[in-house]
Amino acid sequence: MPQPPSSYTYNHTQTNITSLISHLETHNIPYSTDPETLTSKANTPHSPAQPHETPLAVFFPTSTQHVSTILKACHERLVAVTTFSSGTSFGGALTATRGGICVSFEKMNKIVRLNEDDMDVVVQPGLGWVELNEVLREKGLFFPVDPAPGASVGGMIAMSCSGTNAYRYGTMKEWVISLTAVLANGSIIKTHNRPRKSSAGYDLTHLLIGSEGTLALVTQAVLKLAILPQNLHVGLATFTSFQHGVNVVVALQKAGHQLEALELADGPQMHCVNYSRLAGQVFSETPTLFLKFAGPSTALLTDQIRAVEQLCKAQNALSYEVTADTHRIDVLWGARKCIGRALLTMKKHPSDLFMHSDCAVPISNLAALVEGTHELIAAAPSRNRKEWFCANVGHVGDGNVHSSIICPVADRLAVERVLRQIASLALRLEGTVTGEHGVGLKLRDALLEEVGGQGVEAMRRVKRALDERGILNPDKVFRLEDDGGEERAKL
Amino acid sequence: MPQPPSSYTYNHTQTNITSLISHLETHNIPYSTDPETLTSKANTPHSPAQPHETPLAVFFPTSTQHVSTILKACHERLVAVTTFSSGTSFGGALTATRGGICVSFEKMNKIVRLNEDDMDVVVQPGLGWVELNEVLREKGLFFPVDPAPGASVGGMIAMSCSGTNAYRYGTMKEWVISLTAVLANGSIIKTHNRPRKSSAGYDLTHLLIGSEGTLALVTQAVLKLAILPQNLHVGLATFTSFQHGVNVVVALQKAGHQLEALELADGPQMHCVNYSRLAGQVFSETPTLFLKFAGPSTALLTDQIRAVEQLCKAQNALSYEVTADTHRIDVLWGARKCIGRALLTMKKHPSDLFMHSDCAVPISNLAALVEGTHELIAAAPSRNRKEWFCANVGHVGDGNVHSSIICPVADRLAVERVLRQIASLALRLEGTVTGEHGVGLKLRDALLEEVGGQGVEAMRRVKRALDERGILNPDKVFRLEDDGGEERAKL
Repeated sequence: MPQPPSSYTYNHTQTNITSLISHLETHNIPYSTDPETLTSKANTPHSPAQPHETPLAVFFPTSTQHVSTILKACHERLVAVTTFSSGTSFGGALTATRGGICVSFEKMNKIVRLNEDDMDVVVQPGLGWVELNEVLREKGLFFPVDPAPGASVGGMIAMSCSGTNAYRYGTMKEWVISLTAVLANGSIIKTHNRPRKSSAGYDLTHLLIGSEGTLALVTQAVLKLAILPQNLHVGLATFTSFQHGVNVVVALQKAGHQLEALELADGPQMHCVNYSRLAGQVFSETPTLFLKFAGPSTALLTDQIRAVEQLCKAQNALSYEVTADTHRIDVLWGARKCIGRALLTMKKHPSDLFMHSDCAVPISNLAALVEGTHELIAAAPSRNRKEWFCANVGHVGDGNVHSSIICPVADRLAVERVLRQIASLALRLEGTVTGEHGVGLKLRDALLEEVGGQGVEAMRRVKRALDERGILNPDKVFRLEDDGGEERAKL
Repeated sequence: MPQPPSSYTYNHTQTNITSLISHLETHNIPYSTDPETLTSKANTPHSPAQPHETPLAVFFPTSTQHVSTILKACHERLVAVTTFSSGTSFGGALTATRGGICVSFEKMNKIVRLNEDDMDVVVQPGLGWVELNEVLREKGLFFPVDPAPGASVGGMIAMSCSGTNAYRYGTMKEWVISLTAVLANGSIIKTHNRPRKSSAGYDLTHLLIGSEGTLALVTQAVLKLAILPQNLHVGLATFTSFQHGVNVVVALQKAGHQLEALELADGPQMHCVNYSRLAGQVFSETPTLFLKFAGPSTALLTDQIRAVEQLCKAQNALSYEVTADTHRIDVLWGARKCIGRALLTMKKHPSDLFMHSDCAVPISNLAALVEGTHELIAAAPSRNRKEWFCANVGHVGDGNVHSSIICPVADRLAVERVLRQIASLALRLEGTVTGEHGVGLKLRDALLEEVGGQGVEAMRRVKRALDERGILNPDKVFRLEDDGGEERAKL
């Protein structure tokens, strides 16, 4: 094994890229150099890529072998590689910081094999979770990890994502059985077969989940499946304070009741739902707990619904409603689902920014995080501060909250500073700077604050070990080399 | 970073070890060189360590800083390090193949902090899960991962273990929130704080879980907790074939019923329970499904118990019983719990061997694994084969089965060969060679067969990256270097 380089170098000359394309053409690997296509592969939602941050070519492999051929060639030619599956990632993981080429998994979007008795499915990375669930529905099964609707399996693995179902079902970490992946030098590994559990060697499956395309490219995944929720009920309770809603969740957990989902929005968040007119009714603009109940036993549901009602009463709930009516379910849960789009309607000007945090803290510290967030925003030294629209919605069962800020474009730096302060607060409250969105480019300093210089250096060593030339998604998660900036970045 | 060595060397001269001890004495780190103590730290249950496979000194750190001081000194002096927490591991993970020194966590056995509202606990690695649960019981909480009763948290993390509760609750992989660990060079990392979920950087927590002390020494862990099972019921159903029992489990899963535990023993296994007289009654010597039901809703339990009864009837169960009577629960579940000790009573001679497999396959292939195991044992070319006692018990909800063989000591190689064939069969059935016991020394060739040369090489690169001098538990999980034997070992 060669000595780890003291600095990483790439060869992105037109000659080298042209030679790469010619080589891969002989393997019949589809590709494009159309400028619009190239830009589309590097854009982050609400934050388009700069011209120098787009790939020079994008390849569309159709097999693991194709991916192996591409990476072997890039490894030999010192070409950086970003990846694309459907482009819903927030933190800049798609940005082609060094140019290089992009591997898009859009043509690898098949269900390879459904194993109903084992409740697992073998899929390709370009498959969307919504599309997967459409196929599974008729079998009475579903894949429960539910990030943004456009997301596909490859990106979901890369970012270790979750969603509203995480409280009941867990995150990607809990729902991937094994992976087929291609390392930077083109070698193909399969982390396991299809057993539900294994103690066989290092857990390469979990090492790759959340590595944001920096360690290997996943070409196939075995996913666990759950049975479709039965007897679905949706509930909504309103409170005078966020803390009251949190108290209900803590008490529910202690009572051993396992609901399907628990989401808590603050008053401004409900105001924004009303303002957007995206929901089917006007809601009270107070802290609102959204609840989902389901299960094979209607007797259990009756017990649970009664228990929740009592807990809400004990927290002086202003209202409490539970329904099994499908239209009413659509109205209530629809209010939760529209929040992302509703926030965008709060822009006063098309150029306004939509920025948000993704911290998670132990649930007993969640109310303190939300309160502290309000204080940090109120104290932000910006002339326009009163024009900011700020709201919070939390996957409250997991202690994960998204604090959103809509503001004039001139306030980008001020908001970035506040978001960084919120991340620091989350760490003081024993939490994490990102519960489900990943690090990308934006949270690298925050990650350093979370795991320390030794923690980042351990990650960097693993990166070097598996990708000695640093070709895979360089600059993401952490800087490839500590240039001394890490010490400065520590608060 | 120095170039990875082409071969690992250690300095275990008396002079070097004496110098190490003197150095660590100045840090007041307790230690022992008593021969009996040294041997006790390297023994594998039912398979004592050889004299040359014991450490030269054992240290008893009382803090993370102690561990850091020890590893830094060993790293500088090229001294190999094995670890000990309570010594229940089967696969030889404790064996001091190179001598060197042992770090025992027996004095680091405290509960550091219990966070009731967050349902997590911060513990040291030497704490036993049974002792932890004794403290948690009065709070109505428990830690659900239940391997052998003597096991402690450090070893449980090292081996990525599980037990009878894994079907309902999952394995160590699902119940560790974060770790504090010391790397080979003495640097201290903390993988996260206490959030229930995180996407912040590489998943070092899971990289360390199951790494068998080869990547870092864990000095503190944050564990998730569950509420104590309420309204416990235990059931027992008997069938004419193993497949019938498996069918019940598959159907239960598809119906969405989540029981607390599902264990399936074959006829010989039940014979051995009877023969041992360790259980409180005589059982029918036919395939037997052990069931546990629990939950906050008695209504749900009634539903579940009725559903299981119907499924058992549909599989022509010979008997079906469910009880909430605590004495009767002790008798029925006691029969399952005594199986390990009961197997030992089948030895005809004290020197007889007790050997077993730990394969896990997708549940639809479980009956094929058990049937194939019978055939492989029947075909074993040993003169004494008819004297072997063979039995199977499975964590059937996870597709994990332990096939045990009690045989004369002269048959060690023949049994090892059969167990290796069973592991290969499990791989052909899309499974793993170890569901919960880990690789250690015994399953290294089987791991190679499972993940291939590229998979092992990826693990080896990670090992080199974090422990460049190879001092941490050398030779475990895989050979430190591929001496060409790996190609030969492939079947």
